[in-house]
Amino acid sequence: MNAEEAIAKAAADYSNWGRWGTDDVRGTLNFLTEAKRVEAARLVRRGVSFSLAQSFDMNGPQKGWRRRTNPVHTMLDTGVDAALGKQGFPHGIGGADDVIAMPLQCSTQWDGLGHIFDHGKAWNGRPAENVVTSDGDLVTGIETIAGIVAGRGVLLDVGRVIGGGELPDAFAITEEHLLATAEAHGVEIGTGDIVCVRTGQLARVRRDGWGEYAGGPAPGLSFWSAGWIHRTEIAAIATDTWGFEVRPNEFENAFQPLHQVVIPNMGLLVGEMWDLEALAEDCAADGVYDFQLVAAPLPITGAVGSPINPIALK
Amino acid sequence: MNAEEAIAKAAADYSNWGRWGTDDVRGTLNFLTEAKRVEAARLVRRGVSFSLAQSFDMNGPQKGWRRRTNPVHTMLDTGVDAALGKQGFPHGIGGADDVIAMPLQCSTQWDGLGHIFDHGKAWNGRPAENVVTSDGDLVTGIETIAGIVAGRGVLLDVGRVIGGGELPDAFAITEEHLLATAEAHGVEIGTGDIVCVRTGQLARVRRDGWGEYAGGPAPGLSFWSAGWIHRTEIAAIATDTWGFEVRPNEFENAFQPLHQVVIPNMGLLVGEMWDLEALAEDCAADGVYDFQLVAAPLPITGAVGSPINPIALK
Amino acid sequence: MNAEEAIAKAAADYSNWGRWGTDDVRGTLNFLTEAKRVEAARLVRRGVSFSLAQSFDMNGPQKGWRRRTNPVHTMLDTGVDAALGKQGFPHGIGGADDVIAMPLQCSTQWDGLGHIFDHGKAWNGRPAENVVTSDGDLVTGIETIAGIVAGRGVLLDVGRVIGGGELPDAFAITEEHLLATAEAHGVEIGTGDIVCVRTGQLARVRRDGWGEYAGGPAPGLSFWSAGWIHRTEIAAIATDTWGFEVRPNEFENAFQPLHQVVIPNMGLLVGEMWDLEALAEDCAADGVYDFQLVAAPLPITGAVGSPINPIALK
Amino acid sequence: MNAEEAIAKAAADYSNWGRWGTDDVRGTLNFLTEAKRVEAARLVRRGVSFSLAQSFDMNGPQKGWRRRTNPVHTMLDTGVDAALGKQGFPHGIGGADDVIAMPLQCSTQWDGLGHIFDHGKAWNGRPAENVVTSDGDLVTGIETIAGIVAGRGVLLDVGRVIGGGELPDAFAITEEHLLATAEAHGVEIGTGDIVCVRTGQLARVRRDGWGEYAGGPAPGLSFWSAGWIHRTEIAAIATDTWGFEVRPNEFENAFQPLHQVVIPNMGLLVGEMWDLEALAEDCAADGVYDFQLVAAPLPITGAVGSPINPIALK
Repeated sequence: MNAEEAIAKAAADYSNWGRWGTDDVRGTLNFLTEAKRVEAARLVRRGVSFSLAQSFDMNGPQKGWRRRTNPVHTMLDTGVDAALGKQGFPHGIGGADDVIAMPLQCSTQWDGLGHIFDHGKAWNGRPAENVVTSDGDLVTGIETIAGIVAGRGVLLDVGRVIGGGELPDAFAITEEHLLATAEAHGVEIGTGDIVCVRTGQLARVRRDGWGEYAGGPAPGLSFWSAGWIHRTEIAAIATDTWGFEVRPNEFENAFQPLHQVVIPNMGLLVGEMWDLEALAEDCAADGVYDFQLVAAPLPITGAVGSPINPIALK
Repeated sequence: MNAEEAIAKAAADYSNWGRWGTDDVRGTLNFLTEAKRVEAARLVRRGVSFSLAQSFDMNGPQKGWRRRTNPVHTMLDTGVDAALGKQGFPHGIGGADDVIAMPLQCSTQWDGLGHIFDHGKAWNGRPAENVVTSDGDLVTGIETIAGIVAGRGVLLDVGRVIGGGELPDAFAITEEHLLATAEAHGVEIGTGDIVCVRTGQLARVRRDGWGEYAGGPAPGLSFWSAGWIHRTEIAAIATDTWGFEVRPNEFENAFQPLHQVVIPNMGLLVGEMWDLEALAEDCAADGVYDFQLVAAPLPITGAVGSPINPIALK
Repeated sequence: MNAEEAIAKAAADYSNWGRWGTDDVRGTLNFLTEAKRVEAARLVRRGVSFSLAQSFDMNGPQKGWRRRTNPVHTMLDTGVDAALGKQGFPHGIGGADDVIAMPLQCSTQWDGLGHIFDHGKAWNGRPAENVVTSDGDLVTGIETIAGIVAGRGVLLDVGRVIGGGELPDAFAITEEHLLATAEAHGVEIGTGDIVCVRTGQLARVRRDGWGEYAGGPAPGLSFWSAGWIHRTEIAAIATDTWGFEVRPNEFENAFQPLHQVVIPNMGLLVGEMWDLEALAEDCAADGVYDFQLVAAPLPITGAVGSPINPIALK
Repeated sequence: MNAEEAIAKAAADYSNWGRWGTDDVRGTLNFLTEAKRVEAARLVRRGVSFSLAQSFDMNGPQKGWRRRTNPVHTMLDTGVDAALGKQGFPHGIGGADDVIAMPLQCSTQWDGLGHIFDHGKAWNGRPAENVVTSDGDLVTGIETIAGIVAGRGVLLDVGRVIGGGELPDAFAITEEHLLATAEAHGVEIGTGDIVCVRTGQLARVRRDGWGEYAGGPAPGLSFWSAGWIHRTEIAAIATDTWGFEVRPNEFENAFQPLHQVVIPNMGLLVGEMWDLEALAEDCAADGVYDFQLVAAPLPITGAVGSPINPIALK
């Protein structure tokens, strides 16, 4: 079976088109129910919280591919101006103000459902050209899920369990690896969960330099894990890598075939470039791998993704 | 007592400089303890969640004052390109990608501690010029609180209780109004809480047009509420208005004197332009005015504020 | 004849498709020959020069329509930082650096040939979707004319000659008005000239406030002037208004029908929002209405327009 | 004499402070008179024109140092949208529109007089903190020279004459090299000229890759050429390198000492990253090394530099 056939078969086998009606804009987030949200809140036992975001600044991995730069943050006013009396405010008040310009995919983010198409079709079978125009995503813009991305998170530290700390680049994480990791952690994964897969690549590039982190070789989910992703009915998945799936891709001349299956066909919310390091340390220490996770996108109208600061609470 | 004297007196009376050591960068967020976070999670009973963010798009209130524009969101790739085969990806995959340029104060946000100075001093008594340069906030950048803004939120719907729905512009909310509202709601406010004050102005401008929402007359906290804010030891406060405090300010020729007291001197986290409408409806319906609140800033290194999507869970 | 028919007829009558070969990307700039450039240089007699650009800053006319903001200029480093020794450079050197974010149509600009399409066709009959994708104008990007926009400029101060100073909004400038103005000035217009039409609207909005300068009612070229524009074989035309042609447009429910004829069909370079005030004063004083004009676009690869600072030399 | 002393001596020896009055904002552009402008226009003999700008796109040399990215150009509307009928305009008109975000120093540019300070002093002895705040350059903003940068350009192809085509990195161009080049070209340089120095580095990096073009080793003007620059009374100077002067700098631990002398003290307009390749070919072919040069900055209010597209006419 060649790439094109394999992708088509997986797309068909794991399609959720129509599962939540023709108007659906949430995909697998439909699995994340209110009951799940209550269950998730019960996981907060110690009151510790973790930011799962990388920093947003010029020291990031982006090198300009697809016009993706690192975030450019500039000041409109500063404390230096204030100290020298350059601001003209009364009674001694001074202020600082700032601006940012950034690609929405530059650092820790969610891919919206309009981020990927399969043969011209977007999520739920809609024609891509009716969904994302130059005016943005008119249907499944990231604002449609502004309030609902809060539930049970589960960390699968595949890097630690399978890789002894870190998986090498090009390592394809299969269903077997995921199951073995969950078993080692003593954690179960089910409907509505948000799965965080740590490969350890972020730890490595922090030690060794970014290199080709943004788009180059990386450990990641195998194309063949799509069945597990579908069967478990998870609400979302996220990794500490640039692109969620293994790179190079497992088919020759392919580009992100797992994206092509899970985003437009399955309707899965995919997170990338998450920083799972501190959380993973904590989970290893206390042996508890599930937690409440709140990972709200900025409701940028029509965006096909959003920078995020996911918060894990244990 | 003139403005300058009143501000100086309040700044002295309600200063928290040194309270958490000379190195502190968190201010009143120190009140938000792990125990508080556990208590907050217990408030999730129904599993409903609310985004408290306004949308981020060109239909916002900004008109260019202080170079504050509404967010400019543009596409790097679209579904239209994908549909017409303009992207050059293999095997039928297509993609959409996007970029944003925005002031960090353009919509729903937190003010960082480096956002306001008092006579050249930033939070904890640091010289403003040592804190916020053109390179950003080198000390209290918003990234320093990336992981910790999750706790108990309390809605004080002053608009409903005192204003019969909405407070008029220029209405100064005093301690008495806050106490009366809390009592009407049957809710208590204490150490480490995040207080959300609904004035109703956002409902009004949504109905009548933005007008001068960004910087013009507005209901808001009275300068004289600073004592209550200090005494209650709340961790943060947020409103549905542009500037948190009443506008015009209560002193002639003053500019945001309450900011001048509470941010650099008290170390208070202040939120603005929050959308409390749906949450307020729900609270009025079920009579429960406290909830878990997760309002994580984007960790933009050195930022003096951050756009946010606060999530309330009940 | 209804709008659709009139536009179709003018498009056919005044088409230059194929006139300079199938590969042409310059349109009427082909009329601007080397001989013309030599002739133009001879017009520099006194050595005076005029910038015909409006300023690029937040005090401009843009209000957000089509996501067009005024230019946002921010500093990366300042003299204030330098004065306070915050920059870390050796031996006493300090620096200031800056950044801009702006729509290419925000102020004085050229429209590139990829800026307008007629029934899905771009200049020279190319399918619009093959010319301008999300990657920009792949064929007629503004960089293709980077070096050649220098020639003889002619000012037609229609505002002064016909309007006694300023034309009212909605005034349609016809061939008769253009000819009468040229005659009053004692100037001839011919092949390869760059015609600058002053309506006086800019003078008016400077006095009275921007109002709806960006997109609202304005004096401008009549749809029926297309024949004159074609017959004279001018290389380019520019006005002191937002949109070059009269607004409201002369057909009901139409939007910029003259653009639709002259850009994709005729291949004309169109300039907008030029500041002709100082030049017009000078021409009125010395009675000389032609000059050397150098109006080079920034060679932004793939841009469908460019901010410019046109220089007139007399 | 150490670096600090040498810089101080050169700053004193070559200072033009007060030369054109205390209010002056133009520096050496004062040498560019109307007579000079007339003389320059006479140099247009063949009517050929050359853009001396590099392209503005993501394929540039910037790597993020000092938050300098390459220009990010994005589309607001495209021909693809138009072709698929996604724009909603009447009668068959379609459009494309675009936006740019860029540092003003990212590609071919002028340094404004507010770009560099010497021991906290800006051009004409003004305190740097009074000139360039977070609001931009309040005194010598690039808009102050919007209309006047048009005059006689002279190419000194030092790369060809001294380097046999290209000078190696770290090659310091001295007065002797400049004089020898001028003599070889048969050209004289005098008051008010704009001198374009070609080192050949741009040709090299185009062949070999950008490498460290933006900030790394480069041929360039020697610190000791300051006397020649001052004595000749040139109006401006530009090179095909990132930083105009030789890199590494000729003093240990120094950073751009020649900038420190010529910009704040001499008031010289400095151009960088010019593309002199095509012009140099032409000059070598016809033996004529002077020409009319129009290099107008975009009048970005308060900018300390501007992207430009310099036009040379012969």
